Amino acid sequence: MDEFSRIQYWNAKRQEQALKVSLGVKVDIGDDAAVVALPYEVHRDQSQYESLYTVDTMVEDIHFSSETTDFEHIGYKALAANLSDIAAMGGIPLHALIAISIPDHYSADHVMRIYNGIYDCANRYKVAIVGGDTTSSPHSLVLTITVIGMVEQGKAILRSGASVGDIVFVTGVPGQSAAGLHLLQHANTSQYPVALVDSLIRAHQQPEPHLQAGRLLSTSNACHALNDISDGLISELSEIAKASHVDIVIDENQIPLSDSMSQYAGKSGQSMFDWVLYGGEDYILVGTASREQFASIEASFREQQLQLYAVGEVIAGNGEVWMDSWNDGLQLQKRNQIMNRGYNHFT
Amino acid sequence: MDEFSRIQYWNAKRQEQALKVSLGVKVDIGDDAAVVALPYEVHRDQSQYESLYTVDTMVEDIHFSSETTDFEHIGYKALAANLSDIAAMGGIPLHALIAISIPDHYSADHVMRIYNGIYDCANRYKVAIVGGDTTSSPHSLVLTITVIGMVEQGKAILRSGASVGDIVFVTGVPGQSAAGLHLLQHANTSQYPVALVDSLIRAHQQPEPHLQAGRLLSTSNACHALNDISDGLISELSEIAKASHVDIVIDENQIPLSDSMSQYAGKSGQSMFDWVLYGGEDYILVGTASREQFASIEASFREQQLQLYAVGEVIAGNGEVWMDSWNDGLQLQKRNQIMNRGYNHFT
Repeated sequence: MDEFSRIQYWNAKRQEQALKVSLGVKVDIGDDAAVVALPYEVHRDQSQYESLYTVDTMVEDIHFSSETTDFEHIGYKALAANLSDIAAMGGIPLHALIAISIPDHYSADHVMRIYNGIYDCANRYKVAIVGGDTTSSPHSLVLTITVIGMVEQGKAILRSGASVGDIVFVTGVPGQSAAGLHLLQHANTSQYPVALVDSLIRAHQQPEPHLQAGRLLSTSNACHALNDISDGLISELSEIAKASHVDIVIDENQIPLSDSMSQYAGKSGQSMFDWVLYGGEDYILVGTASREQFASIEASFREQQLQLYAVGEVIAGNGEVWMDSWNDGLQLQKRNQIMNRGYNHFT
Repeated sequence: MDEFSRIQYWNAKRQEQALKVSLGVKVDIGDDAAVVALPYEVHRDQSQYESLYTVDTMVEDIHFSSETTDFEHIGYKALAANLSDIAAMGGIPLHALIAISIPDHYSADHVMRIYNGIYDCANRYKVAIVGGDTTSSPHSLVLTITVIGMVEQGKAILRSGASVGDIVFVTGVPGQSAAGLHLLQHANTSQYPVALVDSLIRAHQQPEPHLQAGRLLSTSNACHALNDISDGLISELSEIAKASHVDIVIDENQIPLSDSMSQYAGKSGQSMFDWVLYGGEDYILVGTASREQFASIEASFREQQLQLYAVGEVIAGNGEVWMDSWNDGLQLQKRNQIMNRGYNHFT
């Protein structure tokens, strides 16, 4: 058995049997395919469930560089990004498959550390890793993760449901991941307070999927459209606006900011709003909800000590995103159309 | 919209709505995750089903070279290899997710041709493509496909069920894919009959998953262990023998050969048995079944005009594979242990 096969063999024993049983896993890593009980057999309540499938690829030197991301964090973040897609549907993640293509210059220790990150995230969010494929790669590491989840029948929250009059909200502070990346690439971290450095770097390296928030939104029956912020706030809002055939207006003054990000932007002379609007990889949720029921959604978030910020509203239109800027007297100053310039791999 | 986004947009319309509806697809390409009805809602008979998940990665210059494989065939074969894993569990494939990482030197036409092959295979085997991820790649094309299928509860055929006394069988002729690859790499194809060239190259470039055979074996209730030949006959038999804690003996004279392969081996001076025993990528099935019920399995294969060849038997042991060679008088000549030397990415 070569060293990578040994890692796979060891991986099959890394999760508690009780977790696997609770998730219906009958056969995991090591046969042609995984065998799992259907989710409705796991959750024996009255609800009928539908399945959710999502897949995401992280490519070395495109999505991450081993200079700014530890091997553990490559793994953690790759799975977290997939779980975030399940959160953005309002669903519950159940099972994951890991396909990894490993270049020659990676040692078994590097690969083990990537898996450590993947399993940390899987165990934290109670997801069973049930299979995968390990191959060599001529140049770069490529990590593709598939996640299977479930949601109550008809309750998946799509991008296309935003209605005129809806409140637009976010479930956290956008831009911190981009600020953290800038800090890692450009700053002498010893010049900044430890708490600032830690919070921004953590936002970049180890984002948490907002699964609990997604479930609150799905069970509220009042959330009409939802995305997770992988490509930047404006890019995600633009997707919702286009899919829903509406326009979205956000209010500059309502967008939540963090002290760490403001401080770092001020001292480093960077534009904080670039991070906030276009940064990406925050994996917080952004969506629209019924204005009438927004107070009750806010109450449920408060009760579970989760963040929720109203940042704008849905207006009639056909796919555009606008931002209101205000002067000191709080009189309406200007409504500017905001162009989407989120990251695109091919332009 | 860049040209690769346009391909994805177009992809979402490539399959018949009727196929998607029949497979329970509610939301496919274009949101955070696909939404599908659970398979038990698709097949409203009395059976309870379990889910099957499998993932496989094909990496350029590791698994294929664009010199010996057309772009269409890269796509077709990548999906066929995954469907073959579902066949090797005795299951029914339902849904697929396509993750593709595209290097700079690929044009939109190249990518479209890869998708053409994927969709040809998906439509042929009635699999709905419900999602994916398209990213750039710094060097090589990487294509990772996830397939979700189903099988009747408790009926998945594992590697670990082979019993002493079982008949060992294959569902086709192993070695033809390796012969086809040799032909593509080394031969002047004009020196050989067209039919020979076509059959061997087709075996290499466009293998068909043995899904119908897998279903016959699963519903027979008499198939104890099953693999598909991706890494070579001996490698797959060795996996079954190890997982089942038995030895397997195959009979040199019972292994099916094809005229094309024999002719090409003879004229090119190559060892046909190297292709047959170690070749790989045939995607036929190899397994073990109850001796008492083998005649009835054979009858069901004959009825559906599918190939089935008994090639050996399961004996007591602990994971080894043997081959009997015979002299002309059909007296037992020699039983040799056959070492596994299938392709391993990391040794």
